[in-house]
Amino acid sequence: MAKISSKSQAMPASAIRKLVPLADAAKAQGVEVFHLNIGQPDIKSPQCALDAVRGNKLDLLSYSNSAGLIELRRGLAEKYYRGIGIDVAPSEIIVTVAGSEAVDLSLKITCDVGDEVIVLEPFYTNYNTFAFMNGITLKAVHTNIEEGFKIPSIDAFDSLVTPRTKAILISNPGNPTGTLYSREEILALGEICRRHDLFLISDEVYREFCYTDEPHFSAMNIPGLSDNVILVDSVSKRYNLCGARIGCIISHNKDVMAAAMKYAQARLCPPVFGQIASIGALDTPQSYFDAVKKEYIARRDAMVEGLNAIPGVFSPLPEGAFYTVASLPVDDAESFARWMLETFRYDGATVQITPARSFYKTPGEGVNQARIAYVLEVPRIKKALEVLRAGLEAYPGLTR
Amino acid sequence: MAKISSKSQAMPASAIRKLVPLADAAKAQGVEVFHLNIGQPDIKSPQCALDAVRGNKLDLLSYSNSAGLIELRRGLAEKYYRGIGIDVAPSEIIVTVAGSEAVDLSLKITCDVGDEVIVLEPFYTNYNTFAFMNGITLKAVHTNIEEGFKIPSIDAFDSLVTPRTKAILISNPGNPTGTLYSREEILALGEICRRHDLFLISDEVYREFCYTDEPHFSAMNIPGLSDNVILVDSVSKRYNLCGARIGCIISHNKDVMAAAMKYAQARLCPPVFGQIASIGALDTPQSYFDAVKKEYIARRDAMVEGLNAIPGVFSPLPEGAFYTVASLPVDDAESFARWMLETFRYDGATVQITPARSFYKTPGEGVNQARIAYVLEVPRIKKALEVLRAGLEAYPGLTR
Repeated sequence: MAKISSKSQAMPASAIRKLVPLADAAKAQGVEVFHLNIGQPDIKSPQCALDAVRGNKLDLLSYSNSAGLIELRRGLAEKYYRGIGIDVAPSEIIVTVAGSEAVDLSLKITCDVGDEVIVLEPFYTNYNTFAFMNGITLKAVHTNIEEGFKIPSIDAFDSLVTPRTKAILISNPGNPTGTLYSREEILALGEICRRHDLFLISDEVYREFCYTDEPHFSAMNIPGLSDNVILVDSVSKRYNLCGARIGCIISHNKDVMAAAMKYAQARLCPPVFGQIASIGALDTPQSYFDAVKKEYIARRDAMVEGLNAIPGVFSPLPEGAFYTVASLPVDDAESFARWMLETFRYDGATVQITPARSFYKTPGEGVNQARIAYVLEVPRIKKALEVLRAGLEAYPGLTR
Repeated sequence: MAKISSKSQAMPASAIRKLVPLADAAKAQGVEVFHLNIGQPDIKSPQCALDAVRGNKLDLLSYSNSAGLIELRRGLAEKYYRGIGIDVAPSEIIVTVAGSEAVDLSLKITCDVGDEVIVLEPFYTNYNTFAFMNGITLKAVHTNIEEGFKIPSIDAFDSLVTPRTKAILISNPGNPTGTLYSREEILALGEICRRHDLFLISDEVYREFCYTDEPHFSAMNIPGLSDNVILVDSVSKRYNLCGARIGCIISHNKDVMAAAMKYAQARLCPPVFGQIASIGALDTPQSYFDAVKKEYIARRDAMVEGLNAIPGVFSPLPEGAFYTVASLPVDDAESFARWMLETFRYDGATVQITPARSFYKTPGEGVNQARIAYVLEVPRIKKALEVLRAGLEAYPGLTR
């Protein structure tokens, strides 16, 4: 029997999705599972996006241009990015198969096998997966839960830079932490990139999910660094169209865009129905985002307050996205997550969380932490917290 | 200014799509371009597929399972594959972002960096692109246009096998040649894989486009080789839903499927509207395929007869897909293709073809050949042939 590649054997399984079979088994037993584990919002997609797909008049679903439909690229540039103060031409946008492909392309474009990328840990676990797939090493600047995962001093970056370092990759607001970086922090990161001539790959897929009064400051607006910045964005995330699988990669750097186009051509084109939905989504009224933001602030407050009310649990107050990373009074958050799905029931329900260890590069970090998504309505968040509290009290590996 | 990776610089541009800007420029001048260059059929998508998308009742477009919607996987196994005599369980199917992702995953699953895959040249040019992206070397068994690109003797394969050879990758029916392999040829390829314990990656995305009376023989049905066979398939191609971007990877080998699932999880899920269209497409009546087949046979006959009637042009008679590779009486088919788009006009029209050189690994092969797609209605094929004939007569690099 032919053997699969060593790389495929060593490929890390998704920390976020690998507990899915346990959750499915629990559900098959009739157990209600509160999903705090995944960034799948329950908020309705914009009606204009759904209508665009339902009302399409196509009788043949052809390929689009590899870079995406020009109507979408133009619409993104003129209707969306101009409106939020990001100056970008349609030719500087390539539509991707969601933010995931944009991350993968950014790594391919900036790094050869053996090159290094600096991330802030905890980081989105699939950054590590895509780095692994491309033979790239992530080097992590550590951030602390006690300090709300704020960016540490510039020295921490300087000491990690080697001749093989090609980029800094950030998520702002951050997945998994929900941390929002200020204008000053982004400018400081830009300064590091300028000094070492590194690319700054800025994953801003949660840009419309910011809960402060300050506007989001995009890396695209760092003065004088336009050739070094690559923007990763997601239509799917922004408009609660996760299944559309539409994102984009954006840069003013012509070499970056030419390379992105070569990769884009290899996979022919991004999904066309998703592009049609995305064109429709461009007409989403501001009131939609306002309502979403208000709802998420209420959910966040309920979640973070509830978490911190459980003895031994600590969560900072995230300012963006719809996640928080909390420390739990357990020996191992992964064992706890499995035990919750396999063994623990409270009023016929349990809770699924994502163990945070795989969001860290530094060995031993994050073992007792979990990523908690607040993508449920407030009453359900409160119920989920009740189940979580009871689960912690009953868990054999409790450490408090 | 930060520099992109060496790999991205060296990445080959798509031979199929790189002439697109020249074609766009011609169209901008008001020139009609007959597209013989790309496998974008003009045949309508099945109504049941389009209706499924238009009639969807979703108010939130969520992620699907990373492996695809279970309704689609089950439908593929029970409605489609069972009907054509391929015995496969839903758990042995992972829905991919079209055939492209399935090819990429097959290479990732079977090969490490530095490993080798044997192909039959001329081959689908993106095999080379995906191999390049994964650090894999293609070794080509040469097939001759004069012999209709038939598979040569087994010796040709044996002599290419090294300790680093991990798989044979075929396309059946073949893109770009349209060659259909017989049951005996597939069994012989299976025998080579068995002898050297290689994977057989069988790209059968054109399975429903076969123009002989013999049924298509799938590599999945090679007796006793089920652990070595990986099937690449495409819903997009089969149902003229190119823009849906839905395909699948299939294997009875559990390690292969487990690895495919890890890669699938990294990109979260395949496009959901495309999956909905694909579920609808499963109800496509046989009469649709019969009509499509009849139409393509007429087109093929018109195209091949017309090509062979032009002095100095030769095309074999392909038995599947909707392409042929023809030799042209020119110094260089790429120069000719560019010249047609940039310079030549006939009745306000020109023709776009795909130079075949990049479909070959062997240096110097295919220089005067082109891939010609017969994806237009017969009267338009005839008109395109008239333009092509006139172009050849006027071309400064004519060699006949």
